[in-house]
Amino acid sequence: MSVFTPVTPEQLTAWLRHFSVGTLSGLEGIAEGVENSNFLVTTSHGRFVLTLFERLTRDELPFYVHLMAHLARHGIPCPAPVANRENEYLGSLNGRPAVLSSFLPGASLLRATPAQCAAVGAMLADLHVAGHSYKQRLDNPRGPRWWRETAPKVMPFLDEADREMLKEELRFHHASHLEDLPRGVIHADLFRDNVLFEADRITGIVDFYFAGQDALLYDVAVTLNAWCSLDDGGLDDASAQALLNAYHALRPLTRVEHLGWPAMLRGAALRFWLSRLHDLHLPRPGEMVRVRNPEQFRDILRRRIEAGPLLPWV
Amino acid sequence: MSVFTPVTPEQLTAWLRHFSVGTLSGLEGIAEGVENSNFLVTTSHGRFVLTLFERLTRDELPFYVHLMAHLARHGIPCPAPVANRENEYLGSLNGRPAVLSSFLPGASLLRATPAQCAAVGAMLADLHVAGHSYKQRLDNPRGPRWWRETAPKVMPFLDEADREMLKEELRFHHASHLEDLPRGVIHADLFRDNVLFEADRITGIVDFYFAGQDALLYDVAVTLNAWCSLDDGGLDDASAQALLNAYHALRPLTRVEHLGWPAMLRGAALRFWLSRLHDLHLPRPGEMVRVRNPEQFRDILRRRIEAGPLLPWV
Repeated sequence: MSVFTPVTPEQLTAWLRHFSVGTLSGLEGIAEGVENSNFLVTTSHGRFVLTLFERLTRDELPFYVHLMAHLARHGIPCPAPVANRENEYLGSLNGRPAVLSSFLPGASLLRATPAQCAAVGAMLADLHVAGHSYKQRLDNPRGPRWWRETAPKVMPFLDEADREMLKEELRFHHASHLEDLPRGVIHADLFRDNVLFEADRITGIVDFYFAGQDALLYDVAVTLNAWCSLDDGGLDDASAQALLNAYHALRPLTRVEHLGWPAMLRGAALRFWLSRLHDLHLPRPGEMVRVRNPEQFRDILRRRIEAGPLLPWV
Repeated sequence: MSVFTPVTPEQLTAWLRHFSVGTLSGLEGIAEGVENSNFLVTTSHGRFVLTLFERLTRDELPFYVHLMAHLARHGIPCPAPVANRENEYLGSLNGRPAVLSSFLPGASLLRATPAQCAAVGAMLADLHVAGHSYKQRLDNPRGPRWWRETAPKVMPFLDEADREMLKEELRFHHASHLEDLPRGVIHADLFRDNVLFEADRITGIVDFYFAGQDALLYDVAVTLNAWCSLDDGGLDDASAQALLNAYHALRPLTRVEHLGWPAMLRGAALRFWLSRLHDLHLPRPGEMVRVRNPEQFRDILRRRIEAGPLLPWV
């Protein structure tokens, strides 16, 4: 169910005349992603991925597409958009903005070992370092302002205890001042399904459509919560330590980041609790979202609050 | 004998801190190439090739390095240079200009089938099309002016018959006017050792250091002579037809190119006869060149002259 706009081989053959990627030999839909139509495209030059954008508009896309091109040419294994004969990445196919990208091998993991968490930490650090020279700017669309706007909307759906925790959490973040943290381009959604592996090596970092400018430490916290949380929301210390040490080895964390870490882990948990509540209770008409359990991130948030300064660190 | 400037793992580890390619796990010299020092570099992100330039200077390199970056992002499987933290491709290591590039799998062929020659023709057409939007300019350094300068230098080493053929050939090209041919960036050296294959699919186009602006048809002629010549210099018709048809399907050849074809095949043969004579008889002190037999291209030239307008075409 993730090809919303169909593409025929004849349509694609005509479209590929704008490119220098050889002749089409295979086209099949990819059953992943809920926002775009994705296809595996095989040509005489090799394999590519065709993406037709169903939500993002033509005006919004250059930030993401050029970010991927920038990171790819710095050695980050993310989809590298392919330029067409007019030297443009972004085209149009069947009425949708469309991009052809390099194909990345590998598969996402259901469970990650500490070694694999270390690979994720190192890759995230390299991504942050490579992003430093990226010139385009876009604010993280799911930052504190979005938390404050979204919380009142989901509040009616919460029980008393969760409502109190949410209110208290917003007060806590309002009072904490983390503006001095090192900032840059962040992925902001580096969950397991967005990282491809072959054994312990990362072969792909995908889905940059929540990327934006924010505290780099926020990205570390999002990633740590996603990769190192146990079923009860607590942290797996070995995995967390492996991820953080590997990150720190490539981009050393600063003193101000050290001080901000407990608050950042809570903020990163809050963001996904809120978005999952919103997706569950307030889906927009016609919007396709994979509904995920909000309680997972409520539990992660609660455990981060309880752990306080006793959180893993380097 | 193709690592002229050694690099230790310690030196490379320090140098790679300028990049976002993970941590070094392997370094070995590559025993190919006579002009540069090449190394296979393995990091936690995958495999790369490190090139230290021994002949070309820092000022000469941007044309080639940016050309490869341009073609790679258009889907041509050539080495994609990796940008460092300062967003630059070109660095310096052990006193040499140095570039880190993507690693390309595959191996060059000793003999090519017609299907493989077709793949070469199609790839060359795509390369020419993708090069159309490349902005930097550099004249082909081995064009007609270089022929006229080089011929007198090698003349003393030729026997009477070859000397007559060379003089006559220079007169012929002086009298032919091919200025109106479509021009663009050409590879200009697409011999078998510069194309990597996996089965019938091209996985790599390498060694762009003779690239420049010239007639696209000249590149087709260089490539056809290199891939489709028999031992006696004559053309293998099946291979030649396969290469030309595949090229023509992606970049249709024009009427003026049709008219210029026999002369272009002769010029492309002359260029390599001259350079091989020069490398054999007039090596520069300290220069490393793999000396190849000039007579192979004398024979190719002779056979193209004899064939005249009866050459394969589309």
